[in-house]
Amino acid sequence: MGFRHKDIIGLRDLTKEEIELLLNTADSLNEVNNRDIKKVPTLRGKTVVNLFYEASTRTRTSFEIAAKRLSADTINISASTSSTTKGETLLDTAKNVLAMKPDIIVMRHAISGAHEFLSKRVSCSVINAGDGAHEHPSQGLLDMLTMRQRFGTLSGLKVAIVGDITHSRVARSDIYGLTKMGSNVFLAGPPTMMPVGVEKLGNVTVCKDMREAVHQADVVMMLRIQLERQGKTLLPSMREYSRYFGLNQEVLALAKENAMVMHPGPINRGVELNSAVADGDQSFVLKQVENGVAIRMAMLYHVCGGEPAEG
Amino acid sequence: MGFRHKDIIGLRDLTKEEIELLLNTADSLNEVNNRDIKKVPTLRGKTVVNLFYEASTRTRTSFEIAAKRLSADTINISASTSSTTKGETLLDTAKNVLAMKPDIIVMRHAISGAHEFLSKRVSCSVINAGDGAHEHPSQGLLDMLTMRQRFGTLSGLKVAIVGDITHSRVARSDIYGLTKMGSNVFLAGPPTMMPVGVEKLGNVTVCKDMREAVHQADVVMMLRIQLERQGKTLLPSMREYSRYFGLNQEVLALAKENAMVMHPGPINRGVELNSAVADGDQSFVLKQVENGVAIRMAMLYHVCGGEPAEG
Amino acid sequence: MGFRHKDIIGLRDLTKEEIELLLNTADSLNEVNNRDIKKVPTLRGKTVVNLFYEASTRTRTSFEIAAKRLSADTINISASTSSTTKGETLLDTAKNVLAMKPDIIVMRHAISGAHEFLSKRVSCSVINAGDGAHEHPSQGLLDMLTMRQRFGTLSGLKVAIVGDITHSRVARSDIYGLTKMGSNVFLAGPPTMMPVGVEKLGNVTVCKDMREAVHQADVVMMLRIQLERQGKTLLPSMREYSRYFGLNQEVLALAKENAMVMHPGPINRGVELNSAVADGDQSFVLKQVENGVAIRMAMLYHVCGGEPAEG
Repeated sequence: MGFRHKDIIGLRDLTKEEIELLLNTADSLNEVNNRDIKKVPTLRGKTVVNLFYEASTRTRTSFEIAAKRLSADTINISASTSSTTKGETLLDTAKNVLAMKPDIIVMRHAISGAHEFLSKRVSCSVINAGDGAHEHPSQGLLDMLTMRQRFGTLSGLKVAIVGDITHSRVARSDIYGLTKMGSNVFLAGPPTMMPVGVEKLGNVTVCKDMREAVHQADVVMMLRIQLERQGKTLLPSMREYSRYFGLNQEVLALAKENAMVMHPGPINRGVELNSAVADGDQSFVLKQVENGVAIRMAMLYHVCGGEPAEG
Repeated sequence: MGFRHKDIIGLRDLTKEEIELLLNTADSLNEVNNRDIKKVPTLRGKTVVNLFYEASTRTRTSFEIAAKRLSADTINISASTSSTTKGETLLDTAKNVLAMKPDIIVMRHAISGAHEFLSKRVSCSVINAGDGAHEHPSQGLLDMLTMRQRFGTLSGLKVAIVGDITHSRVARSDIYGLTKMGSNVFLAGPPTMMPVGVEKLGNVTVCKDMREAVHQADVVMMLRIQLERQGKTLLPSMREYSRYFGLNQEVLALAKENAMVMHPGPINRGVELNSAVADGDQSFVLKQVENGVAIRMAMLYHVCGGEPAEG
Repeated sequence: MGFRHKDIIGLRDLTKEEIELLLNTADSLNEVNNRDIKKVPTLRGKTVVNLFYEASTRTRTSFEIAAKRLSADTINISASTSSTTKGETLLDTAKNVLAMKPDIIVMRHAISGAHEFLSKRVSCSVINAGDGAHEHPSQGLLDMLTMRQRFGTLSGLKVAIVGDITHSRVARSDIYGLTKMGSNVFLAGPPTMMPVGVEKLGNVTVCKDMREAVHQADVVMMLRIQLERQGKTLLPSMREYSRYFGLNQEVLALAKENAMVMHPGPINRGVELNSAVADGDQSFVLKQVENGVAIRMAMLYHVCGGEPAEG
């Protein structure tokens, strides 16, 4: 069973088997990342363009390292959204990039749906590195990889996701992926930040407060407060937000013993997590970053129709 | 017959035979760009520095991809013109770059003549990636390559060039190159944008209006309106400009059937071209971009005194 | 005798033998830089992250070229200091970078001590590319390499260092390194720019004026005036500074015949050096830049626990 897609736009589009294939490949590639010579020739002679309409040093860096470890050539392009307000112009830019014959375009764009729009119109592979409040599939996959490494399976896990669910592309990718893999997702957040009707998805429960979500959880996933994507939603004061939706040791004690604490980073310390939790034994935040390189290697590899990695 | 120059500053300096050699090499290298493994070892161990005093994502990206596909190491340096208003300081910067032993400096600079100044003072190769309103040889070469692929020859072609001829380094390189290859160039543009005496060059005709230039043309080359390089010239309003010097289907119908439409990009849609023409069957805009990578590979290859490419 | 450190934070921490090893390796690697194919496979599969909290095109470019010539993969990260005012947050950023498994982090940071803080907390190698007014070891080493190439030894040389000693990390690294190697260092500068007690270091003499420092010197090292690092020190007017602490031919004549003139660059012409001296036969400014690549290759090589370079 292989991976049949030329693009990865969101986890909503992938089957359980395809997600498992990506996670398995990432586990293998993590071995490459732990070697002395961290490089395989798999994508030698391929060109990967990182086309970022929003700055994101962390995600861009992770994709760039991933591509280089697969021996691909990488080109970074920072595009400003201001000059590309119309879908037509996004397409112009992308067609120009495409004319240079890249094999993969890794794109971040503020507009939900920009990637789907693009992927249907170009012949090269498109990987979504985050689009508006829609999806962030590499983050969703690395979250699942980190959980699966710990528990051996995603099936039956209780995963609490806490914060601004509405505006979080991380939450959306996590929810699509985890529910497909058989996890049970419990959501908590301010009422203005909870998408209407989300509980109609199978295996998703909207909780009345954070404590209910965290209670007996295997994983507590804290979302980053992203002021830039709030739009017109009224943001509660940080102090109040933290009191009701921040994770401290007292709330964490409600979860299962040794539950995993996760966060997509960068952490606003004292807001989503206090430092004792962020730096504590239960925190897997840095393991997430580590797995990010392996997951992105797996994504780059499979959209190129990859054969088993040599090296 | 080989290529004897260490630098490529402008098409004015190259012979017909040297231009043909570059176009032939680019045709061969286009095959590399269409392969699964788009990489040849030709410039392995060479260092290419992209020294850009003006931002240009498209040209920089094209040169960077070209260098990487030849296996060169690439270094991007964005220099601000503000700190380097004196030629002396340009030389200081360049000498510092040179001390790091690059093999090729690809430079864009706002001052006409900056490259010639530099090339005479450094031992490594200098390629002009655009200097003020002087020349943009890689653009001129890729334009010619695109025309030659279509018609098999440049000799005897009628090429209309429309727009701000005075301030266009693209026009200048096209005119020098095309007339050398035996094409007949017809220019049209607002009187304030037409260089005095340009008709004294052989094979160049200044037309009284756009329709005369386009009439029975094989190629209609539309120039980008570049506000930043207008200087004190009075710019006609965009609407008026577009009415007299924009290309629509009605004007295009005056050219030969299936005449090529070209533009160096990025297009100001609705100003130089309307979208029906820009996206129509006669548009070769994206083919120009595609050929840009191959032409830049050929330029990098020949200034290094290249042997036939392996790989 | 090998190099036992995983990090290079400053020359204060290295023994005379370790400095000699770095200089010897750099001499060998300079041969690579003069080859047609300027690349050795020594660090293939290693990841070098250039993490720059202060912009420095020259130093970043030199490290990037050095890493690429050793076949390492390089990733450039520009971090803004504004978002990282607390050491804790520096650590967060660095731990995130570290989770992507780089082999070496080359860091520039405005805070003195940032590198030492970091190096104690991460397992990968940390190389200091300049930290506040503390040290700039690659500059110190390349200065010593350039002197040793000329004189065959550093022992017994009279080296004048002139300018803002207090705020110069270059001066600090030069002083630590040179005195360790047996050179005699003579300092001159405005009283507000002379660190209290510096003469207590062995082999260091604080001179009453520039002429005393330059008198019979083998090397005259002029420091760059760096307004951004002056803090609250009152800067004398440039004209006055230049009169008392600028190097012209008349002052240079006080040094030994054919004394070396050095400057870390970029030169403020007419302030620290006049152009006749900067471009004269005694200037080694560009040789310093050239040696910079070799020294940085040697540093990258030895922190990786290098074996003799192949290639």
